[in-house]
Amino acid sequence: MTREQLTEHILDIKRERRLSWRQIVEAIDGLSDVLIVGALLGQMRLPEALAAKAAAFLGLTKAEELMLAEVPMRGQNSPMPPTDPLLYRFYELVMVNGPAWKELIQEEFGDGIMSAIDFDMAIERQPDPKGDRVKITMSGKFLPFKYYGAGPNVPPNGAKGA
Amino acid sequence: MTREQLTEHILDIKRERRLSWRQIVEAIDGLSDVLIVGALLGQMRLPEALAAKAAAFLGLTKAEELMLAEVPMRGQNSPMPPTDPLLYRFYELVMVNGPAWKELIQEEFGDGIMSAIDFDMAIERQPDPKGDRVKITMSGKFLPFKYYGAGPNVPPNGAKGA
Amino acid sequence: MTREQLTEHILDIKRERRLSWRQIVEAIDGLSDVLIVGALLGQMRLPEALAAKAAAFLGLTKAEELMLAEVPMRGQNSPMPPTDPLLYRFYELVMVNGPAWKELIQEEFGDGIMSAIDFDMAIERQPDPKGDRVKITMSGKFLPFKYYGAGPNVPPNGAKGA
Amino acid sequence: MTREQLTEHILDIKRERRLSWRQIVEAIDGLSDVLIVGALLGQMRLPEALAAKAAAFLGLTKAEELMLAEVPMRGQNSPMPPTDPLLYRFYELVMVNGPAWKELIQEEFGDGIMSAIDFDMAIERQPDPKGDRVKITMSGKFLPFKYYGAGPNVPPNGAKGA
Amino acid sequence: MTREQLTEHILDIKRERRLSWRQIVEAIDGLSDVLIVGALLGQMRLPEALAAKAAAFLGLTKAEELMLAEVPMRGQNSPMPPTDPLLYRFYELVMVNGPAWKELIQEEFGDGIMSAIDFDMAIERQPDPKGDRVKITMSGKFLPFKYYGAGPNVPPNGAKGA
Amino acid sequence: MTREQLTEHILDIKRERRLSWRQIVEAIDGLSDVLIVGALLGQMRLPEALAAKAAAFLGLTKAEELMLAEVPMRGQNSPMPPTDPLLYRFYELVMVNGPAWKELIQEEFGDGIMSAIDFDMAIERQPDPKGDRVKITMSGKFLPFKYYGAGPNVPPNGAKGA
Amino acid sequence: MTREQLTEHILDIKRERRLSWRQIVEAIDGLSDVLIVGALLGQMRLPEALAAKAAAFLGLTKAEELMLAEVPMRGQNSPMPPTDPLLYRFYELVMVNGPAWKELIQEEFGDGIMSAIDFDMAIERQPDPKGDRVKITMSGKFLPFKYYGAGPNVPPNGAKGA
Amino acid sequence: MTREQLTEHILDIKRERRLSWRQIVEAIDGLSDVLIVGALLGQMRLPEALAAKAAAFLGLTKAEELMLAEVPMRGQNSPMPPTDPLLYRFYELVMVNGPAWKELIQEEFGDGIMSAIDFDMAIERQPDPKGDRVKITMSGKFLPFKYYGAGPNVPPNGAKGA
Amino acid sequence: MTREQLTEHILDIKRERRLSWRQIVEAIDGLSDVLIVGALLGQMRLPEALAAKAAAFLGLTKAEELMLAEVPMRGQNSPMPPTDPLLYRFYELVMVNGPAWKELIQEEFGDGIMSAIDFDMAIERQPDPKGDRVKITMSGKFLPFKYYGAGPNVPPNGAKGA
Amino acid sequence: MTREQLTEHILDIKRERRLSWRQIVEAIDGLSDVLIVGALLGQMRLPEALAAKAAAFLGLTKAEELMLAEVPMRGQNSPMPPTDPLLYRFYELVMVNGPAWKELIQEEFGDGIMSAIDFDMAIERQPDPKGDRVKITMSGKFLPFKYYGAGPNVPPNGAKGA
Repeated sequence: MTREQLTEHILDIKRERRLSWRQIVEAIDGLSDVLIVGALLGQMRLPEALAAKAAAFLGLTKAEELMLAEVPMRGQNSPMPPTDPLLYRFYELVMVNGPAWKELIQEEFGDGIMSAIDFDMAIERQPDPKGDRVKITMSGKFLPFKYYGAGPNVPPNGAKGA
Repeated sequence: MTREQLTEHILDIKRERRLSWRQIVEAIDGLSDVLIVGALLGQMRLPEALAAKAAAFLGLTKAEELMLAEVPMRGQNSPMPPTDPLLYRFYELVMVNGPAWKELIQEEFGDGIMSAIDFDMAIERQPDPKGDRVKITMSGKFLPFKYYGAGPNVPPNGAKGA
Repeated sequence: MTREQLTEHILDIKRERRLSWRQIVEAIDGLSDVLIVGALLGQMRLPEALAAKAAAFLGLTKAEELMLAEVPMRGQNSPMPPTDPLLYRFYELVMVNGPAWKELIQEEFGDGIMSAIDFDMAIERQPDPKGDRVKITMSGKFLPFKYYGAGPNVPPNGAKGA
Repeated sequence: MTREQLTEHILDIKRERRLSWRQIVEAIDGLSDVLIVGALLGQMRLPEALAAKAAAFLGLTKAEELMLAEVPMRGQNSPMPPTDPLLYRFYELVMVNGPAWKELIQEEFGDGIMSAIDFDMAIERQPDPKGDRVKITMSGKFLPFKYYGAGPNVPPNGAKGA
Repeated sequence: MTREQLTEHILDIKRERRLSWRQIVEAIDGLSDVLIVGALLGQMRLPEALAAKAAAFLGLTKAEELMLAEVPMRGQNSPMPPTDPLLYRFYELVMVNGPAWKELIQEEFGDGIMSAIDFDMAIERQPDPKGDRVKITMSGKFLPFKYYGAGPNVPPNGAKGA
Repeated sequence: MTREQLTEHILDIKRERRLSWRQIVEAIDGLSDVLIVGALLGQMRLPEALAAKAAAFLGLTKAEELMLAEVPMRGQNSPMPPTDPLLYRFYELVMVNGPAWKELIQEEFGDGIMSAIDFDMAIERQPDPKGDRVKITMSGKFLPFKYYGAGPNVPPNGAKGA
Repeated sequence: MTREQLTEHILDIKRERRLSWRQIVEAIDGLSDVLIVGALLGQMRLPEALAAKAAAFLGLTKAEELMLAEVPMRGQNSPMPPTDPLLYRFYELVMVNGPAWKELIQEEFGDGIMSAIDFDMAIERQPDPKGDRVKITMSGKFLPFKYYGAGPNVPPNGAKGA
Repeated sequence: MTREQLTEHILDIKRERRLSWRQIVEAIDGLSDVLIVGALLGQMRLPEALAAKAAAFLGLTKAEELMLAEVPMRGQNSPMPPTDPLLYRFYELVMVNGPAWKELIQEEFGDGIMSAIDFDMAIERQPDPKGDRVKITMSGKFLPFKYYGAGPNVPPNGAKGA
Repeated sequence: MTREQLTEHILDIKRERRLSWRQIVEAIDGLSDVLIVGALLGQMRLPEALAAKAAAFLGLTKAEELMLAEVPMRGQNSPMPPTDPLLYRFYELVMVNGPAWKELIQEEFGDGIMSAIDFDMAIERQPDPKGDRVKITMSGKFLPFKYYGAGPNVPPNGAKGA
Repeated sequence: MTREQLTEHILDIKRERRLSWRQIVEAIDGLSDVLIVGALLGQMRLPEALAAKAAAFLGLTKAEELMLAEVPMRGQNSPMPPTDPLLYRFYELVMVNGPAWKELIQEEFGDGIMSAIDFDMAIERQPDPKGDRVKITMSGKFLPFKYYGAGPNVPPNGAKGA
């Protein structure tokens, strides 16, 4: 069984039982929507307790439950550049605005990156008389590039490197 | 003169006069930071009045000022996937989380996209005792896919299509 | 079941019952040809009522009917550049004429894009003694790039952003 | 001198003399807007008489005038997929809708293509209270795939092949 | 059933019955060799009468016969650049000689292309004491680029465009 | 000096002296059109005597004359797939018809290729009342794949290998 | 049955019967090792007599035997650049040393290529106290680029072209 | 001035003054070798005090000194896959061993990554009678994937997200 | 059976029996962790004795055991650039730091490479109060580029080449 | 000065003084032809003594001489797949014959590679009445994949790893 087959199976169950993601997320509970849906789509893992709840709710086998709790090989099956218009717009935002983001983040924080790992995110509807808007709030830890010294590097206890 | 040469020239001026983006943005004023920096990096245009202020502040020629007010060919000079770590993390967010974003946005809003054109965005520092975080807030108009009817399409006055 | 398998199944039914797209579109009715055919080929969704009509007409299962009403992951299975000559000609039009389209649209409308989402389109035969012509009429909403201000961005009610 | 250098030079002149494409097209006259702008951007040729008018109006050298009348190597300098949002939307239309276009054109016309060579096109503003629309009308000759016979092929006078 | 599966099936039949292409082409008759073989390999369609003859000769099902008469999605399964040496040599001819072909065809015919649609072709053995040669004769209609005028474009009856 | 610079220089001379390829080919004489034009475009070499005639006719320096007689690094500056419509049509012919060409050539000649090196070619106008046609005749030596034996390979005098 | 499936089947047989390539090559005999192994891996054909011996030795069906004698679509399933370290080293030799090989071969032989078709090759162990070496000896016919004349090209009997 | 030009200039100075990296690193001092060399090659920044020492030692202008202290657009000018054999070997290590590294790191640390930002590294010579070895020691902070909860995400003060 | 199918099968067994890599490595024993896990994931081979132990422990068939002892086609199924964040970080290290590694290794060792074949590696946890670190130690033999002489090359006994 | 500029300069000198590679190699002497030509083309380094001889013979500056003795960034400016027919044939040999080479080398030597670093090579003319042949003899050290043990890896003195 591959993770891709598990994802396809879960989508079949969702369709046949006419479940919404909302219902599934509420049944599993305990993590944000993006993480639970991401795990069911094969991009994240579910903690074991939640994988058990997911398996019970969706009627999965034990092996499927265990696979849901495994760290997947992420990013597979996402063609880049994205072919889907909804996803391409995000890609375009990075391509067009990326240089300005880099300058502004670095001027504010110094040399480093916004983590994509110690990261969280919410998606909300923002009502607007001219047409509702999608509001996305992201928060990622700033990780400064380490500029370690000229002495003996990488000591056994890592004291200097941190 | 190409837009890329203008960008290089502006970066030379910024370096030689030891200007920060903050100072430049305040001198030009009137648009958000991301837009002004984006324009000076060749990805956005400045409205004519602001292009004039930019030219005055940076000491640009008239032709350079006019070019700043032109719509650029966007996305040039941004290798994709981004080679720069700061930019790659955003690309990775799209690749790994994209499928979940698509499901959640579509379940909430129906079939459509978040606009990357009618879009705005802010970058802020989010203080955190474990290390400050980069907070990014995006807001893009939701654009539903048009499911137009079977009658005569594309009438001269476009009434049905909207 | 994947969407690709559903598309293959529908094409098998169409072939075995010797149906034309014209007959299928008339049986489903209610949306333009391009949308109905696009949905049956896995690039668009059918509204639920039409998915039910399609299922009844084509003899699909309930799960297949439900899948027809789901938003697909668009653009899959379309190699780019297109290998098929009919499709490549459209690609070439974009590549060769794109720079002129950009200049003319921007001079007329300002900085922005023609939406590919709030978009409709008709294909017609244009009789011509020298050989009939394909006439394509497209109409997409112009979306101006938002040049939002320097004040507090992305307010909770989105008033400024629109 | 390369064609790309000529294009850059023309854009410099246009910027410095603050010309619009409208003014340039009217000064050259005699061909559609898309063709004249396309030629000045290095994707089309101008007939010799019009190249002379263009040179007179823009103040080009004789060698530049002659180059404007040469058939260019088309499609250079257009990254594909397009990085510019305005151009990408057209690319996306081909990718997402292409399969349906192919089915509908072939059902109506038989096996063949819409020519991208014997082709013309107009871009218009379509006023709309919900936001003006870009209306694009394309007309390309339908070219049926030739299904020539089993006899001696390619006779000297080409009679059968046509 | 996909077209690729049909091709594989036909090649299995050809192998098991030890048929040559020559025998198959003679049994189907009525079109040139390149077209019949191309259709059986999934790149062309057979007219319905010939598809029926092909089905009778090869022992295909009715659905397979109907699929042979459908226009295929062309160019699939041909990796480019070709990995097969026989095919690569043609690709190389285009890459190395293309610029000279373009100059010579355009000087002789003006701005335009040789059609790959209104096109026919023969392959023959050319005996030669130093080693026989492959002789290929191609004939494609020259299609001049249309340089339509500045008046109202794309009239309803297309009279001017042709 | 690069070969690309030499090509650009030759095209400048041709434009300024309003020479046609016909005139240039006649002045140099002694090789086919495709070869002479190919050499001037940087894809072939001219024999030394012809390089001297070319230099005399075009007014080139001695170093330029010597470079014309050098074997170039072929295929540079030809983007593949070709972006130019005239060249793309040839590429498409290979992609769409390649599988059939392979089967027919191999059934006639056995396992091997048509040489792209021991190759010649002519381009002619084929008058046709429905529109003139481009006639291309190619002749390449058939080179059979060598199926050498199991004995000691690659003897010093190569007797067996041929 | 595809050629890839046949290759997989042969590798299964080889594994289950614990055969070495040495044993297989000796059983089939009559061609060099590289050719026999290449054919069993789907990149070359076996002459019919050897295909029969291979089928007898390996226990293949008649259809599999016939497929072994067919010319395959070469180069499929070889990702380039090679991901396997053994194969990548050869690719690297071409990339790094290619320019020098080109200069030296052309200075010695004139304009042309070393044939990859009229080619043979042996792989041997070269004992060495510092670690044995792989010795590869290649011999390919030199094919001079044809520089055919300016007269009527491609005569029916090809006399001049050779 | 681009960063690439600065790198080229520094390499010119190093060559002309016959400096080794060892000498340069000792003159600048204060950071590890990899960081100082990385900065001079345009992939890292030097802190301002070190940029001043570098400028004094190498004889750079003030603008060059300031550019050395800027965060560069990283990863430019590194073709991937690397064409240089020394660099390719590292790439190959990632490609071949990556799946095992992922399993072992995740089993030991849980779901997350080794940071490439909070990272340090040393390169040493490891004497060995069979041929000296390159010893590389890397140490990167483990960053666990954040599995944030289902409550209100991304609070203003980011307390929960860390 | 393909190697990929064997890997999938082993992962199914591991999941169903809830084995850790630690348990598997201890059961097989005799090689480093990275090599055993690499072999089970299809990138390395197991020596025959260890393949037998692996088969006994995991309950594999004889054919599966034999396949584990075969050299695999390495690097398949590792998309590059890696889509998985854990793997991408290593790729990024090569891309960003590669140029500095090259300079420092070459200055220390001369012209050559660090072998990726005569190579070993360990992964350890490095406890750190600021967050544990991943410590990776690599050791690869330095292989100097051979600068062989101008005399007769490649003698039969390879004496000079070493 | 870049290495590419130095290569172009050397080729200019060679052309203007009408030198052959043979003459240049004899003047520099002391290394094989492939290495000297490779260094002058920017893919190898010359030992310092030979760089001095090269500079004296070709009239290079001191800086150019020093650059010739630097290890270059190899493989730049070699498009892959090669566009030049002479080079492509080698690439094709790897692609088509690679799988067989891998099987035969591994069966003879075990798991490992032929080094592309401890490697030498000769190119010779092999007279043949049917047309002379290019004979290439390569000899590369076999490097076995290291299968190091399960004990403490990578000890300080590297004893076990070799």
